[in-house]
Amino acid sequence: MNKQVLLKSRPVGRPSADNFDLVETAMPDCPDGGVLRRTIYLSLDPYMRGRMSDAPSYAPPVEIGGVMVGHTVSQVIESDNDAFAEGDFVAGYDGWQAFAASGGGELRKLDPAEAPISTALGVLGMPGMTAYVGLLDIGRPRPGETVVVSAASGAVGAVVGQIARIHGCRSVGVAGSRVKCGYVVEELGFDACVNYNADDFRASLAAACPSGVDVYFDNVGGPVLAAVLKLLNQNARVPLCGLIADYNATTPPAGPNLRPLLVKRAMIKGFIVFDHQDRAGAFLQDCGQWLREGQLKYREDIVEGLQNAPAALLKLFDGQNFGKLLVRVSPDPSR
Amino acid sequence: MNKQVLLKSRPVGRPSADNFDLVETAMPDCPDGGVLRRTIYLSLDPYMRGRMSDAPSYAPPVEIGGVMVGHTVSQVIESDNDAFAEGDFVAGYDGWQAFAASGGGELRKLDPAEAPISTALGVLGMPGMTAYVGLLDIGRPRPGETVVVSAASGAVGAVVGQIARIHGCRSVGVAGSRVKCGYVVEELGFDACVNYNADDFRASLAAACPSGVDVYFDNVGGPVLAAVLKLLNQNARVPLCGLIADYNATTPPAGPNLRPLLVKRAMIKGFIVFDHQDRAGAFLQDCGQWLREGQLKYREDIVEGLQNAPAALLKLFDGQNFGKLLVRVSPDPSR
Repeated sequence: MNKQVLLKSRPVGRPSADNFDLVETAMPDCPDGGVLRRTIYLSLDPYMRGRMSDAPSYAPPVEIGGVMVGHTVSQVIESDNDAFAEGDFVAGYDGWQAFAASGGGELRKLDPAEAPISTALGVLGMPGMTAYVGLLDIGRPRPGETVVVSAASGAVGAVVGQIARIHGCRSVGVAGSRVKCGYVVEELGFDACVNYNADDFRASLAAACPSGVDVYFDNVGGPVLAAVLKLLNQNARVPLCGLIADYNATTPPAGPNLRPLLVKRAMIKGFIVFDHQDRAGAFLQDCGQWLREGQLKYREDIVEGLQNAPAALLKLFDGQNFGKLLVRVSPDPSR
Repeated sequence: MNKQVLLKSRPVGRPSADNFDLVETAMPDCPDGGVLRRTIYLSLDPYMRGRMSDAPSYAPPVEIGGVMVGHTVSQVIESDNDAFAEGDFVAGYDGWQAFAASGGGELRKLDPAEAPISTALGVLGMPGMTAYVGLLDIGRPRPGETVVVSAASGAVGAVVGQIARIHGCRSVGVAGSRVKCGYVVEELGFDACVNYNADDFRASLAAACPSGVDVYFDNVGGPVLAAVLKLLNQNARVPLCGLIADYNATTPPAGPNLRPLLVKRAMIKGFIVFDHQDRAGAFLQDCGQWLREGQLKYREDIVEGLQNAPAALLKLFDGQNFGKLLVRVSPDPSR
């Protein structure tokens, strides 16, 4: 039997486990010329909140009764496609289920000798590429500039700050606890990290950016965005990647006062990683090399079992995860 | 005697006439190698609110007791500078006073045969160039796209919409009355203009932009910005030129919800015209030609007498002016 998590109802405000249904369904057949695979890792990411809602967005919502979408790393268990053999590891977009089958054209083969296969969902996957294109192509940091990133211990933020450091920038994180901030500075090598839950957040942020802020890679919106805008330097760039502080709001919250944009001739630009597929080759080459050289580190927060995926997703919106959030749907034979 | 308007005190919230002092002072002498001139026109512009305040901005404030700053068109009455002769008309930045003297290096000679000299403060001056660089260099409109501009009957907005039309765009204005909207469509040739004071503003704006909004040139911020953001198309550009709705606020008001930027990969970028001096030649050539060809029209709102400048400035913040606001400080002998 296959196991699937379906979207049962659309959340109003914060999602709950009641919005999901865990069901058993028939095993899919391997189609002619196609590939059948077993899910090993399912990636949980903030964008999933958008797919649960039918508010207009850049991608259509999951239908009620449909399988929740998500990036996956899987192992091929049956193949009628010459590009894949039984036992191959593949990255795909199979969603919240234990098995999936398709023609296979959308799958990317992974080599466990090059990097742990789970990295295809994090530092070498969509989150890493989001960091890469958002920072380098939208933020365009120059050596010596100050780069601030929110959700700095998360899957995207951790890569942003490390690439900023590699590019010779001062790298300043914003995270939600003292422990996360310690990790960001000591393990990831950021120059500083500020706890947005501390009373002195604004003063600490200003102290961490003595030369102001040239690039703010924003994952969260809300009060952190408002605080960073006040520190922007002339011609600053703000790649807007996410607004997780707003995602569970039932009415759209107001945004920050925009006067700093005017006074400082600064730019905010929203972006979505899948508009930048032409950069996939450069991303995999650069980040793959930095990973092998030990310049790029990562941390995973792994939850066991597909049945625990709904509760795990909620952790993202409370900042309770610590590192790239993954669900281990079946054992990883490559480890 | 010279007449000057000094900044007497910094306004809290909306400025009033009490913030200014009208004084008589000694006539300035023509310096060795310099130029003495009589002010004919003084330009009143929204940025002046910023110069009255000591909040951090892109330019230093006027000092208490200092002459209010402003662009001027004047006539030379005495010259010891070979570049200027008595009787020449010049554009400068002499501020709120009847006479001024300086070396003259900062003055630009005007030819009344080419265009009325007052246009050097409007369509062929700082407001026109603000429109030109903001629309073309930041907004980058393509033929067939929809361009929306707020304060559409004002000095900047009127030029924005006309250049958009000249570039083959659908040109939609937002203005504060039915009369202004009528002028914008019938005289300036915009495709549509929507009254932001009407009850059905949001619906009318959406109806005026059936293909969405590709460029929004914002002069006002506030509720108009929030309304336009909801209509943005993918990859839309928002040159942020002014936030006049906020200028008299005593605490910084919240801004619009920024989710449309994310979903539509849109950009907001603040800009200030004096960063773009390299475009002055192209601006004067293009707008000068469009003006001579009758493609670019303008309207002036002229107040008589320097003593009436303070009250006139307040009209700007209430949307009571209709066209480029000028003070006639002395008679215009070129007319």
